[in-house]
This record gives sequence, structure tokens and C-alpha cells, in this order.
Amino acid sequence: MAQVRMRGFKQTTKADRALRIFFDALQAQRLESEYVLTSEALNRVLAEDIVANVNIPAFDRAAMDGYAVLAEDTYGASQTNPAILRIIGKVDMGVPPSFKVSRRESATITTGAPMPADADSVLMMEYTKKISGVEIEVYAAVTPGENVSRAGEDVQRDDIVLRSGMRLKPQDLGMLAALGFTDVSVVRKPKAAIVSTGNELVESGVSAEPGKIVNINRLILSALVEELGGTAIYLGIAGDSMDEITSQIKKGLADTDIVLVTGGTSVGESDLVPEAINSLGKPGMVVHGVSIRPGMPTGLAVIDRKPVISLSGYPVAAMIGFNTFVRPLLLKLLGTEEEPMAEVVAKMPRRVASTAGARTFVRVKVKHIDGEYVAEPIRSTGSGLLSSMTKANGLVIIPEEKEGIEAEEEVKVILFRPIETERNE
Amino acid sequence: MAQVRMRGFKQTTKADRALRIFFDALQAQRLESEYVLTSEALNRVLAEDIVANVNIPAFDRAAMDGYAVLAEDTYGASQTNPAILRIIGKVDMGVPPSFKVSRRESATITTGAPMPADADSVLMMEYTKKISGVEIEVYAAVTPGENVSRAGEDVQRDDIVLRSGMRLKPQDLGMLAALGFTDVSVVRKPKAAIVSTGNELVESGVSAEPGKIVNINRLILSALVEELGGTAIYLGIAGDSMDEITSQIKKGLADTDIVLVTGGTSVGESDLVPEAINSLGKPGMVVHGVSIRPGMPTGLAVIDRKPVISLSGYPVAAMIGFNTFVRPLLLKLLGTEEEPMAEVVAKMPRRVASTAGARTFVRVKVKHIDGEYVAEPIRSTGSGLLSSMTKANGLVIIPEEKEGIEAEEEVKVILFRPIETERNE
Repeated sequence: MAQVRMRGFKQTTKADRALRIFFDALQAQRLESEYVLTSEALNRVLAEDIVANVNIPAFDRAAMDGYAVLAEDTYGASQTNPAILRIIGKVDMGVPPSFKVSRRESATITTGAPMPADADSVLMMEYTKKISGVEIEVYAAVTPGENVSRAGEDVQRDDIVLRSGMRLKPQDLGMLAALGFTDVSVVRKPKAAIVSTGNELVESGVSAEPGKIVNINRLILSALVEELGGTAIYLGIAGDSMDEITSQIKKGLADTDIVLVTGGTSVGESDLVPEAINSLGKPGMVVHGVSIRPGMPTGLAVIDRKPVISLSGYPVAAMIGFNTFVRPLLLKLLGTEEEPMAEVVAKMPRRVASTAGARTFVRVKVKHIDGEYVAEPIRSTGSGLLSSMTKANGLVIIPEEKEGIEAEEEVKVILFRPIETERNE
Repeated sequence: MAQVRMRGFKQTTKADRALRIFFDALQAQRLESEYVLTSEALNRVLAEDIVANVNIPAFDRAAMDGYAVLAEDTYGASQTNPAILRIIGKVDMGVPPSFKVSRRESATITTGAPMPADADSVLMMEYTKKISGVEIEVYAAVTPGENVSRAGEDVQRDDIVLRSGMRLKPQDLGMLAALGFTDVSVVRKPKAAIVSTGNELVESGVSAEPGKIVNINRLILSALVEELGGTAIYLGIAGDSMDEITSQIKKGLADTDIVLVTGGTSVGESDLVPEAINSLGKPGMVVHGVSIRPGMPTGLAVIDRKPVISLSGYPVAAMIGFNTFVRPLLLKLLGTEEEPMAEVVAKMPRRVASTAGARTFVRVKVKHIDGEYVAEPIRSTGSGLLSSMTKANGLVIIPEEKEGIEAEEEVKVILFRPIETERNE
């Protein structure tokens, strides 16, 4: 009976096992690197370790506004027993001073300015008083190195400052700039071809004849690819014919790193996608039918070392299939890890059923009610309703070994939108 | 003494109060809207509610592969007592059938295909058997509506499907496409001018003379603005002269929505930025000196209803100042909320000091050790060290009323990079 409920799939493979089979068959490697301008490298994946070729700071700098001095001249200085130092000059920002500071001398200095030779510390302005145009009284002692940013304090030459595989954040771009890298080696963007199949599909905005359905997976999948740092190449709608489907997948295989095919993945009569994929090379479909809900009819194929992933025509099922298989694949091609995701622990207000043996993705709306988070499941029938994803702000994953979630049970929710403040309407 | 430690600031304002004073003086409104292609609207902020102008699906569709039937013809059917129905046709995908289904009739149908007139349910293939070319045996009963996606089941005409102020996610683009919106009204991108001040600054990649410092805030701030959905316009380096600083801020005020000025914000001798800002209009600086560490010398100004924010020349302090003040301002101009942030609860391995009365931002590296998260503080002296941000994967915020974090205390960490797997080196 379970077999029947799976719409004709003889058996489905658990998600983790499916991914392993797929990755084993594929043996994907990180893509090549390319140079991009550092100013355009935000969120790109670094392709090599970055080693500092200079010290940062490059020279000793004042860390406070005050006077550059020799610490030993201040030892014992206090309000009642001030030391007296001669002012021999002023250090300008960005200009290494031509003079040096000797015993019982001082030089006015601003935060960030280069230390004059022989001065070893900066006396804060507040602990001093000018007693003439050329002398200060010193009311506190400093220790050697006090209020000085030493050369190499931030970064030492030969330090590995950024690691291959990191996603570049704003501060990383700053670090690259500080080291003088105006361009940087990053992993090139994976290219994903998108093939939409189905005689019923029309493009958005075309006035649809009766019986037609707007091709929405195209936009959703492109956006998912781009969010992860890939490039999506849409190849258009293929009608339900072996020829059309085969030739589009072939085109995708020639031009891109991943081919995503949507629609036609059930085992119904007009199910041409698996046949088309298998006709194109070896090993072909290595998994067809996965124990995820929604997303069961997902197919994973390898054609001549390139990945072809067949996703449901239903948008939510396609998204879940994407996140379960295409996402880890894109991360692998990029040589990077998943970025941290926002999560919250929330209470389920009522029981939610799931199929034992299948990983179930429940769309929820998390609300903050009386100091606790409540994850209201979005009403939805099966895999078809896109509104369940646009209304939701989170996703609850029920693992294979668990049968449903009890009312009042606490669950982890992956949050993809803010938790709304209740509207007064 | 506290006064002295604050580098000459007579008093500093608590962060929340500073933001309130700034926002009260500014009275910022959401920016205008603009139309963009739906295919290019990922992460843009929706400027108006989206109301469905059609039903989705537009027509009743099969939700399973099988036979479109009248449910009452199947009542009482079982393995031992099958009902017999005549097959009168086949419904093709995307083509509304020209025939209707009458009593004791059925039509072959595929998932997603339009239901023929009068048929009210779909009998799954698995519960039937073809007994001749034109007849099926039916072994189970269906109820009216079973396995049918009703018109409007996903979205009903006149439903508000997406709300003004939402950041558009992949599924939202799909929804817009489904409704035929090929373009969409979004809030235009806020433009932020970046002015870097300081005689000591040089651009990255220029071979630096001794005493010079690479202008790295430029890249960091641009990236921070772009991450939030704004456009950064870099106006170049202004030397330490009233004329240069004033004319650049003026240019920023004329062309952009926000002016960010870095450097020259302490109260040292050569502190021209506040003077320059105040010379340009009213009310000028409404806050100068904020109780945040790092980031204390942040200044918040309003000139003729436009915001000017003066940030530290130290990159980490500039980032903290940005996140505390520019970030909420950009969200306000965009009319949207903060997206959910990844957080983790971790244990501090040792005591971390903070200044009472100041909000302190501690850069940490979270590791997963023996099943628990440990947040190792990154060694750093003051606000200067950019490496503290590139080494960190998280940020701990110590609130004003708390003096430091005890060893072994659990803290909430905002995660901005993956928690690393320990490397074996």
C-alpha cells in the first residue's frame, strides 16, 4: 500500500543515501578559479589562502592623541610630582617624522600618526598640561609600548589571513585592500541550465489559453541558484516530446555545470524525462524517487560526469528537491560550506502528521505570542501550493525516523523571513 | 576619570537613545518605488501589497495520474466488487477537454491536466485495471473532490498574496510570475555616499609611501551598504582640510540619501569632520560620541533633512557604528525589517571585560568542542584590529547594564560565518 501511495515508485531512496549515491557517481570537483576585482568580490568564494605580504600596520603608530615620549622619562610622575618634558615638534598624519625624540623630550602626536624614532610610548593629552609654548607637565607614568600600535600588531607578514573556501564578507574585502590585493582569486560561478518541460506551460505575462499553466519554476530555480552564488541559464520550455527534452538537456550539458529539469518526473504515461536523460549517456539516472515530502519524484542523474537533476513540476516540491540535492552540489562545486542559517525553537500548536520513512518539510508561520514562539503549520494539500511557501516564514524538518510532531512539541524552525509583529487590522 | 578614558568626549550617549534622537531629528520616510523586472527583483523590497487578479490554479486540475470520474460511480467498489466504467477519452496536458464525463464514464488524465466537465474526482491508476481497450475495473471508491486541485485552491482572486515591505524571496518571484506580474513595484535602492577623510590615506594597490595607510573603510562600507540592498557611491579621499571635507559632504548631500564620513571623529586637534558637518546646515550633529565599544566616536547628524553619519577611521569601529546606526536607517528607508540572523548559544571559556554603561561588541570564534559550543574571544587591542573581524565567525553583544561576561557563562552569539570543523594541521 505504501508503494501505491508513492504514485507508482517501486521504492524511494532516503535523502542522505540518495545524495551519497549521487555524489559517488558524480565525483564532483571544485570548479576552476578566476580573478575578480576585490571591490566586486563580496560573497564570492576565495580560491586560495591569502598570505600577508606586509605588516599591518606597516609602522609603529600612536593609538591615542597625546605626546610621543620615552616611557622612562615619566616614571614616578604624578599630580604632585610632575615630570617636565620639552616639546620638540609635532607629528603630522601620514608623514614619517624627520626628527627623533631623546631623553626629556616629547612630540605632539595624533592617533594613527607614525611614531618618531626612539619614542616608545604615547602619553595621553589628558595627563599633561602645557606650561609654556615648549614644555609640558606630565602627571602620570606610561610604560614602554603604552598607547602605541606596533607594526604587525594586526597582521604579521607571512600570516595566513584568509582561507581558501571562505565566502568573502565586507571585512575580508577590507583585509584584501589593506594588503594591496586589488584583485583576488575566487572560484568561478557554477552555471546551471534550467529546462522546463510540459505541454501545459506558458511563460509568465503571456495571456494564457485555457488549460495552460505559467512556468514559475524557471524564476524560482534561477533565484535559488543566484542566491548561492551561481549563474542560471534558462533554456526555455520543452514540450512533452523526447526530441525536445533530449535536445535541451544536451544543450545544457554542453554549456553548463549542472542541468536542472523540471516537470515530468512521476512515472505516469507521458513520463519522458527519465528516458530522455538515460538516452544521453552513462550512468544516467542513479536515483529516481526520494523519501522526501514534498519532492518525492526527484531524480538524480550523471551523464558523462555531469550532473542532471530532475525536479518536480510543482514549485514547492522543486524547491525542496533543490535544497536537498542541488544546494549541496553547488556548495561542493564552489568548494565552500553552508553559511549559518537563522533558526528558532518554537512550539507546534497542533499535531502534524508525516510519513514514516520520509523526511517531511512543513511550512510554518512562526509568531511571537505571550513571550514564546509558536510555529503555526500552513494549511496545504500536498506539494502543489506555492502560497504555502509565500505565507511561511519558516520550515520545520521532520526526520525520517519520526512520525509527525505532537501538539505542544518544541521544534527547530529554519527561519527565512522575519517573525512578524501581529498586525492590528 | 571615565571622562578621560573616553578620549576627550565630555559625555557619550547610549546607543538606543542616540538612535532615537537621530531618527527624531531626521524624520526619515520610506523612499519612492520603482518598477523592476520580476526576474531581477530577488531581495528587493516590495513597495505595495500584491493582490491576486486571477485564481491559481485557474481551473480544476487532476492532482494524480488516473481517471477523471464521477465519484458516485465508485461508491461501494472494492476488489471483490469492482465497478466498471467506460473510457471515453484522454485529457492532454494543457488542453481543456472538449468532451464531458457522464455517469459510468471515465477519462484518462495526468497530474496537472484540466478536469473534463462534470467529472468531480480522480481515481488513481493503481486502484484500477484496464479490462479492455475501452473499459476499466475500479477497486476503490473516491469522494467528490478527491485528487482534484480546485481552481483557486492555491490563491483566490482578490487575496493579498504578498505584503508591502517584504524582501522578495525566490518563491515570491514565482508567485508574481504565476499571477502574470512580469514587473513589480519595489522600493528604490538607497544611495549612500562614502567620504574617507585623512591625509594619511592612500587607495589600495597604490604603492604606499612610508607613514601612509590604505583606505580600507571604503570597501567595507560599500559592501555593507550593498548587502542590505543599497547602492554605495564612493566620493574619494578628502585630505584634512575644512574645504575638502566640506565640499565632499556637500556633494554627497546633493546626490545621495545618506552620507557616510569616516575618520577624524575623535576630539583631537585636527578634528575637522564635526565642524565641516555643522557648517553645512541645521540641525547638524545631534549626537557625537556614543556608548558603544568599539565605535565610541560615532557622530549622527542631520543637514536639511538628510542624514550624515560620521564613523571612526578604524575599520572595526566603523563596522560597529554602521551596524548600530546606518543599518536601521537603511532598513527604514527601504521600509522593511531586519532579516532573521543566525545565532547560537555558546559558552565563554574565560572572563571578558566590558565598560559599564557602554554596549560592547566582542568578536569571537565559535567552535564545536565535545558537543558544546565554545565562543573564544579574539585577542584584540581596542578598535583598530581588522584581523579580529576576519578571524571571527561571530559577535557577542554585552549590554550596557552588564559588566563583562564571566568565565563559563553562556552567551548568545550572532554568527556570520560557519562554525569551523577543526583542521588537522
